[in-house]
Amino acid sequence: MGRTDSYPGLFITLEGGDGSGKSTQAAELETWLREQGREVVRTREPGGTEVGVEIREIVLHHRGDIAPRAEALLYAADRAHHIASKVRPALERGAVVLQDRYIDSSVAYQGAGRDLGMDEIRDLSMWATGGLMPDLTVLLDLDEDAARLRLDSARTRFDRLEAEASSFHRRVRQVYLELAQAEPGRFLVLDATDAVATLAESIRSRVAALL
Amino acid sequence: MGRTDSYPGLFITLEGGDGSGKSTQAAELETWLREQGREVVRTREPGGTEVGVEIREIVLHHRGDIAPRAEALLYAADRAHHIASKVRPALERGAVVLQDRYIDSSVAYQGAGRDLGMDEIRDLSMWATGGLMPDLTVLLDLDEDAARLRLDSARTRFDRLEAEASSFHRRVRQVYLELAQAEPGRFLVLDATDAVATLAESIRSRVAALL
Repeated sequence: MGRTDSYPGLFITLEGGDGSGKSTQAAELETWLREQGREVVRTREPGGTEVGVEIREIVLHHRGDIAPRAEALLYAADRAHHIASKVRPALERGAVVLQDRYIDSSVAYQGAGRDLGMDEIRDLSMWATGGLMPDLTVLLDLDEDAARLRLDSARTRFDRLEAEASSFHRRVRQVYLELAQAEPGRFLVLDATDAVATLAESIRSRVAALL
Repeated sequence: MGRTDSYPGLFITLEGGDGSGKSTQAAELETWLREQGREVVRTREPGGTEVGVEIREIVLHHRGDIAPRAEALLYAADRAHHIASKVRPALERGAVVLQDRYIDSSVAYQGAGRDLGMDEIRDLSMWATGGLMPDLTVLLDLDEDAARLRLDSARTRFDRLEAEASSFHRRVRQVYLELAQAEPGRFLVLDATDAVATLAESIRSRVAALL
């Protein structure tokens, strides 16, 4: 897996657009892992710590008013604190960490749609975390039409990113797929329109091989 | 001066330990510049903007509880926003910006005393600001004994950095002097124990050459 760190735990991230089923699959996987007797830590970015919540408040409160690099640095600060204070300790005591969104989200969302380069966003994130990469990243891939249909039917109020142009979503999906292609050993790419049970089974068998 | 940016203004930073007289000299210089008919913007880091004040609140409130890289990223975010929203616009309209502490403070204080490398701190700051370097940096150099004497006599309550070991202060001063030696074209190094009027005259004559 090209691990740069050595710890007894397992670091699994879930990626994909909103509405792709990340939370559902994380819950399924958590249940199964607990049945196997593993400690599971479910977490998310941004906002996985107290400091992170305050940072998120700044980003949201000053919407539109924050310089793009400042925003990227705030997200990186949230990540640095989250990884150092919550994720690494969990991995070091042997837990399985299931994290909703990580470095690939930053590259796909900040890098694809904003003024900043994807390599810059990646480098920043790598510095923030001391180079911690996931052992496995599950990408729940959903094409744009399917994604919109799901969100519409859920009557979810679109948040800022949802509200942005559909060309942005296409670009984000494209970046996700390119990232997965570049690191096939780390990624498991699944069609998010498959049945929940089918997806869960695919994820379990990949995770089982890593345990 | 090796300027990487092109603008009609002038970007001057003041560096040195607390008690070295940065504020006094900034005030002297501001008065003189206004007499020359120049617009002057006096500002400081950290906390030179509204967003910066909120960021500073997080750093101070969670004292001791924030991962070192997260703290460095928060300071960099403050700087990114401050430079983009306040300093660059001022420089672009031709103002002289007098700033209390900038990149050299970060390198000297964060790099010298903490877990992070000076090159890393510098790179982070350069990325945050899009590479904006001062046209002139006035370093008010004060040896440790003189610095402590000044602070004692002012009956100032020592803040966190003041309270740290004197070896830290020696190291900070050493880094400042090394930075100045590496970029003699950018730095004006003065003995902070000289008379206020003498120092002010030295600074004025250097600034006059840049106007």
